[in-house]
Amino acid sequence: MSNAEASLEHLFRVFTMPEHHDSTLSRIEQHLSDNLSDFLSRHVVAKQTSLEEIEQDFNDPHLPVQPEFVSTHAEHLLTKLVTNSVNTYAPTFIGHMTSALPYFHLSLAKLLVGLNQNLVKIETSKAFTPLERQVLGMMHNLVFQQDDAFYSQHLHSAQHSLGAFCSGGTVANVTALWVARNAKLAAKPGFKGVSHAGLASAYQAYGINNLGLISSKRGHYSLGKAVDLLGIGRNNMLYASVDSHTLDPAEVLALGKAYQAQGNDLLAIVGVAGTTETGHVDPLDELADVAQELGCWFHVDAAWGGATLFSDTHRGLLKGIERADSVTLDAHKQMYVPMGAGMTLFKDPAISSAVRHHAQYILRKGSKDLGSTTLEGSRNGMAMMVYSSLHVLGKSGYELLIDQSIDKAKVFADMITAHPDFELITAPTLSLLTYRYNPAVIQACSGDSEAINEQLDKLTKAIQKKQREAGKSFVSRTRLSINRYENQCLTVFRVVIANPLTTVAHLAAILEEQAEIAQAHPLYVELLKAQECIIV
Amino acid sequence: MSNAEASLEHLFRVFTMPEHHDSTLSRIEQHLSDNLSDFLSRHVVAKQTSLEEIEQDFNDPHLPVQPEFVSTHAEHLLTKLVTNSVNTYAPTFIGHMTSALPYFHLSLAKLLVGLNQNLVKIETSKAFTPLERQVLGMMHNLVFQQDDAFYSQHLHSAQHSLGAFCSGGTVANVTALWVARNAKLAAKPGFKGVSHAGLASAYQAYGINNLGLISSKRGHYSLGKAVDLLGIGRNNMLYASVDSHTLDPAEVLALGKAYQAQGNDLLAIVGVAGTTETGHVDPLDELADVAQELGCWFHVDAAWGGATLFSDTHRGLLKGIERADSVTLDAHKQMYVPMGAGMTLFKDPAISSAVRHHAQYILRKGSKDLGSTTLEGSRNGMAMMVYSSLHVLGKSGYELLIDQSIDKAKVFADMITAHPDFELITAPTLSLLTYRYNPAVIQACSGDSEAINEQLDKLTKAIQKKQREAGKSFVSRTRLSINRYENQCLTVFRVVIANPLTTVAHLAAILEEQAEIAQAHPLYVELLKAQECIIV
Repeated sequence: MSNAEASLEHLFRVFTMPEHHDSTLSRIEQHLSDNLSDFLSRHVVAKQTSLEEIEQDFNDPHLPVQPEFVSTHAEHLLTKLVTNSVNTYAPTFIGHMTSALPYFHLSLAKLLVGLNQNLVKIETSKAFTPLERQVLGMMHNLVFQQDDAFYSQHLHSAQHSLGAFCSGGTVANVTALWVARNAKLAAKPGFKGVSHAGLASAYQAYGINNLGLISSKRGHYSLGKAVDLLGIGRNNMLYASVDSHTLDPAEVLALGKAYQAQGNDLLAIVGVAGTTETGHVDPLDELADVAQELGCWFHVDAAWGGATLFSDTHRGLLKGIERADSVTLDAHKQMYVPMGAGMTLFKDPAISSAVRHHAQYILRKGSKDLGSTTLEGSRNGMAMMVYSSLHVLGKSGYELLIDQSIDKAKVFADMITAHPDFELITAPTLSLLTYRYNPAVIQACSGDSEAINEQLDKLTKAIQKKQREAGKSFVSRTRLSINRYENQCLTVFRVVIANPLTTVAHLAAILEEQAEIAQAHPLYVELLKAQECIIV
Repeated sequence: MSNAEASLEHLFRVFTMPEHHDSTLSRIEQHLSDNLSDFLSRHVVAKQTSLEEIEQDFNDPHLPVQPEFVSTHAEHLLTKLVTNSVNTYAPTFIGHMTSALPYFHLSLAKLLVGLNQNLVKIETSKAFTPLERQVLGMMHNLVFQQDDAFYSQHLHSAQHSLGAFCSGGTVANVTALWVARNAKLAAKPGFKGVSHAGLASAYQAYGINNLGLISSKRGHYSLGKAVDLLGIGRNNMLYASVDSHTLDPAEVLALGKAYQAQGNDLLAIVGVAGTTETGHVDPLDELADVAQELGCWFHVDAAWGGATLFSDTHRGLLKGIERADSVTLDAHKQMYVPMGAGMTLFKDPAISSAVRHHAQYILRKGSKDLGSTTLEGSRNGMAMMVYSSLHVLGKSGYELLIDQSIDKAKVFADMITAHPDFELITAPTLSLLTYRYNPAVIQACSGDSEAINEQLDKLTKAIQKKQREAGKSFVSRTRLSINRYENQCLTVFRVVIANPLTTVAHLAAILEEQAEIAQAHPLYVELLKAQECIIV
């Protein structure tokens, strides 16, 4: 619309359904789809453009004044945005918990936006409200396995909720701990409850100095955000088993008792089912015992690992999850639903009343509006994506997906172990693992391990960066304290196997690329020199 | 897939890009689109099905075991979900802040899901990170109008953020108040700050009993959630000007001073730019003075009304918003972007460091990852929808949309005033208004106003319900305390004019339908009898 002026007619046109399949908008959409297909069939990064260069394209703080044709803008998006995005569908993108999605989600996305329901209240969602409740019921069933009478009583009850749908695992964790806090510091004779009186008064009323949250060092960073947000304070984030990947129940018990003995109480123990960095699973069943003994809430963060419950082979890894008071699950991780589908599930369907709220124009008392007990207000119908995935893939489909991810991770771990120049750091419990480049000649040296590790850290970091920049594949990196190196903190490659299209051949190629990058890197030569090893 | 078994081959197929335009998936998508078009061209509610009946379709808490063909499932969605949804695109759906969307968003939705970027970190978003920062910059510019040097310094700075993108206004309000709380109770010699030490210790360190939040009774219910969540407590939600639709600055000042004199301090004053129920705008400029005098944060909840700033004609209504410390805006309201596009904007680009957090595997110190200062973790690329809308509609397009909504609301208000059997309760400041059915014969009676109002409440509620159930149009209802009825609380119709396709003729028809429903209703006859008015 060069030199075009905004007109009501133009505006009405963009709000009016295109009538023909071959309309302008359809052609634009086809063009976008073709380009998208092309992009998604390429490497992780299509173009080696630096962040600083890209920033130049998104630098203007001024509002565009005149309207632009959709076709012109679509072209702009393709050249400036799409080509400089990350291809999270690539089978060689194995660095984060984002993966390829089933393609039917693209069609569903149109339906979702086309309907544009708002699930805060029935008046703007109608059938989506029962649907979301059913999805929460199915997921509750997956975790807690209650009987049919339980679900028929609670699934559609205005006084109950089996969980809260939300944008992601962080809000899910915050919601769970918010409910836990309000239930712990509830109203009692002479006290109106933390929700009304606030946290400082609640501590007085309950005679405690502080509330603590116990988790392992591998707990997700959202737990820190949650205790900050809820007013509990990051100082009261108590880490047990700090040099281990999982919580030791005896240590948790001792830590909890010591903390309580100092005039404090415990808000919750958080067990993780699939840590973000290494995929470990805490001993949930034993932690449930400890929580019971300490008299505190038991939350399980299963944002990543929850989907393991679909697998009859591996579900046992999460034994005890059914004893949790609340469980976080992200459908946008191993359930292959687009970004934005988190949930908290509550064992007790009445407990979320601890955060129940009302308004005059919606969420009136007795209504089935979902917004009465959620942290978020307006929300879209993302639950439909979960509902559809559950139907199109089925429990048996998810089972296959989970099983093959874990199998592939094990094969990759064996491949790393067998390779003379790599070192497996954490073996996969679920489908995550960590490792590093550690050439055979160095492994054979018996030098000062701290100094060697420092150099290996630099090399690992350099390889990861170089591989990312080359754009063919992507693994991430993190730093972990490792027992067998006297709890030194090591920089490691972090791999998340989730994309069903990732093959063993892809994994082998990624490893080979890393070895090549390493051997061509100046740090490699330096490393060998410094360690006085001689290359024959 | 009747009797089909899950197979890896089937699973790979759903993850593999369909190759031909006329592939099965394309045909399914076309079928979904055709049905969607059909649905969106109908009335507000396509079928008069009760919620209880719909619940029967979404009642099964068991996981589907076997996979289902996408085509079979699509049919199921159409018959069970789509037909029983609410047509928020209908020009006669004028009851909530959800409206028709420009159709290009349907194509963009495919792109968004197809790319499935995660904006928590650059490694899974790349160009989307600079894009989101630019959108925040443009919106910051719309509100705060800083100079180019300001934006060129802060737009892409790792140490700064001009705001936080989030799923909606509630998270935006919570984020703003979280930052305000942490900035207020910051670290100082001998105290590590509320973020670390928690709220109870912070109150001690700062020698205060409580922190209060001042807003009007028309403030959004998310403010109550925020003070609950943040540990401040709903008792410290201080309402000023309780019998008015807007805050009186003098009252706010007096209330604040009295509260401070009791050993408390103020977290913030919240001014609303477009209240959810009536669309009123608080006197922002004067409230900024009061906040300054009381030494507290000034937050403006412009979730609805913020887009008014696009209009040169009406932007003056929000005078003083540029003096706020933080501003909430929902692009999924008057910016016509799909559900899930909220943001908080900060006047001071350094202030969000009050909630900055890090992790080893992402959000490392010095990174430009957007997740370092957001409440949410993983987030999708919804900012693209805002970016595209800003370009395709332009500032001048938005201006036209805002202007015609406000104009139409005024025309509708005149129509109500002119109608003998309706009573305008609150006139539109922006494009919201409230009214009720109050027949001329009753208006002429001089009976006990409380008893009459009670009956009118019942009738208004009954009309609203009947009209909603009939499915042709939808207005919402709420309860408001009204000055000219000695602050009695009245049940009123609530109207939100947002859909550009809503015409004056639609509005007239909605009013006529209400009059017809009223006169056929048993409560109407009862009302006349009880008031001893005689119908000639």
